[in-house]
Amino acid sequence: MKRTERLNLSMLFDFYEMTMANGYYRMGMQEKITYFDLFFRRVPDGGGFAIAAGLEQLVEYIQDLHFDEDDIAYLRSKNLFQEDFLEYLRTFRFTGDIWAVPEGTPVFPNEPLVTVRAPASQAQLIETYALLAVNHQSLIATKANRVVRAAQGRTVLEFGSRRAQGVDGAVAGARAAYIGGVHGTACAISDQLYGVPAAGTMAHSWVQMFDSQYEAFKTYCEIYPTNAVLLVDTYNTLKSGVPDAIRAFNEVLKPRGITKCGIRLDSGDIAYLTKEARKMLDAAGWETCTISASNSLDEELIRDLLLQGAKLDCFGVGERLITARSEPVFGGVYKLVAVEDADGGITPKIKISENVTKITTPHYKKLYRFYGSDTNKAIADYLAVYDETVDESQPLTIFDPDATWKKKQVYNFTARELQVPVFKAGKLVYDLPALEDIRAYCLEQVDTLWDEVKRFDNPHKYYVDLSQKLWDIKHGLLEKNG
Amino acid sequence: MKRTERLNLSMLFDFYEMTMANGYYRMGMQEKITYFDLFFRRVPDGGGFAIAAGLEQLVEYIQDLHFDEDDIAYLRSKNLFQEDFLEYLRTFRFTGDIWAVPEGTPVFPNEPLVTVRAPASQAQLIETYALLAVNHQSLIATKANRVVRAAQGRTVLEFGSRRAQGVDGAVAGARAAYIGGVHGTACAISDQLYGVPAAGTMAHSWVQMFDSQYEAFKTYCEIYPTNAVLLVDTYNTLKSGVPDAIRAFNEVLKPRGITKCGIRLDSGDIAYLTKEARKMLDAAGWETCTISASNSLDEELIRDLLLQGAKLDCFGVGERLITARSEPVFGGVYKLVAVEDADGGITPKIKISENVTKITTPHYKKLYRFYGSDTNKAIADYLAVYDETVDESQPLTIFDPDATWKKKQVYNFTARELQVPVFKAGKLVYDLPALEDIRAYCLEQVDTLWDEVKRFDNPHKYYVDLSQKLWDIKHGLLEKNG
Repeated sequence: MKRTERLNLSMLFDFYEMTMANGYYRMGMQEKITYFDLFFRRVPDGGGFAIAAGLEQLVEYIQDLHFDEDDIAYLRSKNLFQEDFLEYLRTFRFTGDIWAVPEGTPVFPNEPLVTVRAPASQAQLIETYALLAVNHQSLIATKANRVVRAAQGRTVLEFGSRRAQGVDGAVAGARAAYIGGVHGTACAISDQLYGVPAAGTMAHSWVQMFDSQYEAFKTYCEIYPTNAVLLVDTYNTLKSGVPDAIRAFNEVLKPRGITKCGIRLDSGDIAYLTKEARKMLDAAGWETCTISASNSLDEELIRDLLLQGAKLDCFGVGERLITARSEPVFGGVYKLVAVEDADGGITPKIKISENVTKITTPHYKKLYRFYGSDTNKAIADYLAVYDETVDESQPLTIFDPDATWKKKQVYNFTARELQVPVFKAGKLVYDLPALEDIRAYCLEQVDTLWDEVKRFDNPHKYYVDLSQKLWDIKHGLLEKNG
Repeated sequence: MKRTERLNLSMLFDFYEMTMANGYYRMGMQEKITYFDLFFRRVPDGGGFAIAAGLEQLVEYIQDLHFDEDDIAYLRSKNLFQEDFLEYLRTFRFTGDIWAVPEGTPVFPNEPLVTVRAPASQAQLIETYALLAVNHQSLIATKANRVVRAAQGRTVLEFGSRRAQGVDGAVAGARAAYIGGVHGTACAISDQLYGVPAAGTMAHSWVQMFDSQYEAFKTYCEIYPTNAVLLVDTYNTLKSGVPDAIRAFNEVLKPRGITKCGIRLDSGDIAYLTKEARKMLDAAGWETCTISASNSLDEELIRDLLLQGAKLDCFGVGERLITARSEPVFGGVYKLVAVEDADGGITPKIKISENVTKITTPHYKKLYRFYGSDTNKAIADYLAVYDETVDESQPLTIFDPDATWKKKQVYNFTARELQVPVFKAGKLVYDLPALEDIRAYCLEQVDTLWDEVKRFDNPHKYYVDLSQKLWDIKHGLLEKNG
């Protein structure tokens, strides 16, 4: 792991966070305790679930949150903030509580991935970065999980750095892709910083640098006998690419008893070419040679290639994964759900909208996931008011919050609280898991979902229900404010 | 400008760049001079041109390029590299030449935005980051320019940080958007780091924090009398939002003689609501009050809103700009185009592909733009071999490189070399322009394009032609290698 000083991100906020923070300060409201939920409204690509990620980035940001002299000088230059507020920023730290769903958890619309309880100014200022981190990492983890599921157990490598949206798009993007299940990345610094295994062999330029393709292949095998994946499409894949590769394998690897090797195709009709290449390799005794492809792939193309019987062991997935090209936005939002009075009483808050799907679920809540005790499959998620408990020993009737007549009785289940405490009074109380463990947990948790939720087209809508008490509060507020 | 230590990006490379670099080293080829072109093949969104950007990021990276002890330790741990190569990396610096099209220049497919002449290992290692920087910045600058053109002179603000793909997506993304013509950003750190003007006022949470919307508005106007843009859609835009805003303006701003103020809508039927809001504001004597909208906008929606007669002075454009949502990938590539012999002779190299559009234009080239001397409009771009010159005093016959019978005579023109020297023998020889100047240059250069090239749908295909000499070399190589 490389330790390098990184840009402090405390100033990465939408400017209105600061005008509001100053406003709360001016009104003596800066210490008023507020509750914010971070949640999303729909799963990208019409999928049945998303993968939560970005908590580690959020934690690092919160721990580092402070304003330097140059930050304060910059803010002063805007002629909007008074000196007492700028003085207050000098010692500004996050002193609140944060709960969050662990990274790698499959999550569903309208449930809080992160809940913040903090003084108004603090809760407001962290909005932009909290959303940025969770939106970006969840977007890529969710997309990666789709790609990995499409590959049906074959190796998937993340190849997109050069087309990523900025440094973090590439570097942290590879981390998110790994959480979602890819097996490695081309991006060396993601390996160094996060431990995402990086690998790579050659580009077309390597082949072009030699007088002949055969010489390029032979030289590569001699230098890297244990890492020989040859790019065979620089000139003509079947006429010269695969034959030259076989010749290099025969002359360099065979005498050394090395059977592990591979070829990669980056263009052309992958389904046809891989079937032909497989035949040629097998006929030459190179059944152990793997075939990789890396030509603008995504989950749809991978599914289609496999349906066509393409002979592929490994997919290098570039721009369409690292930018989530088919839907490059994870629409997480961060909404005020409650405020605390001086005496500790919690008043739920709701955000009304003419668009019904934009109405928020108010209050400080708890998020449960019910697993069937016999199947270990996830049955439903359940949002309750913070002071409610779930009695697993009793059957529980849950209902659709929009179509309340749709009821379901849940029994023989275990209820797991999905959010874990991350910060308590500004102090980190959460042990950040290792990236390997997050990835393993993600794959294990995706396994708890029914196939109907995991299917790519028209997946089953997983239940995210409200407790009766929470539903009553929400509808009471709607009646009052609507 | 905030000066903060940033992550060194030397390790941000696709792993194969390093296996190739080591391979060249092993073969004694690491000092062989190579020429690489960075170019793209199609304009995103079917547009007629793109805006080049990202050169400043590339320059910073090149200047900082080196490998630390921990980088070398990481590479050693991969068990692929020998000690003499790792030793060579210890003193590795970029010693080559780079030419590039200045940031903000309108550019077209298949012309080199960046040309690198450097020892093979160096030219190879910088590929990933050069592409990442230019692809990302050009993507967003190009998209921003579309949005700005759609707004027809109205103010456009970049609002997308929370949905950006990582930190750089937001921070450097705002810089690129500014180059493309937006007037400012919500992102404070982009202002601090790059000087993109940041602004902002309030979110829905501000309104929710007060007992009444009117109180929230009044308080805001009192704190920020000169920066009062009120968000009017928290409850009901026309029933309470606009009336409460007018009341606050009347009570707080009017007595102070302040006429500058605004309202913002973030939801609902923007066309209808702004027309009604305009009437209400005008009737109340607030003709000076601007109306902003910020609800999932992009160039298409802005054009449609204006066609519908929406009364809008300012657009806050979020996720669809900062991720270039409609086409989130700028497909720049980096290809070997020539190698230099020991005696300085330059051998052109070509990359063949079954896909004709993927065939590269070989050789070390010069890129010219011809402007009509009377119109000052861009007529055509012209790629010539590096040692060719263009005689502006004589008419020049240019031809379509694909349909060679399509000829055009160019006369009364000035020829401008589009690439400028950036690095010479590893030394920066280019004065990086100020961001304001890049933005002004971009707007001025976009003005040199004919409306037919700028149109959104089915734009005229701008000429990017090859000199006869270059065409002959390309077709000679195709005949030989095809």
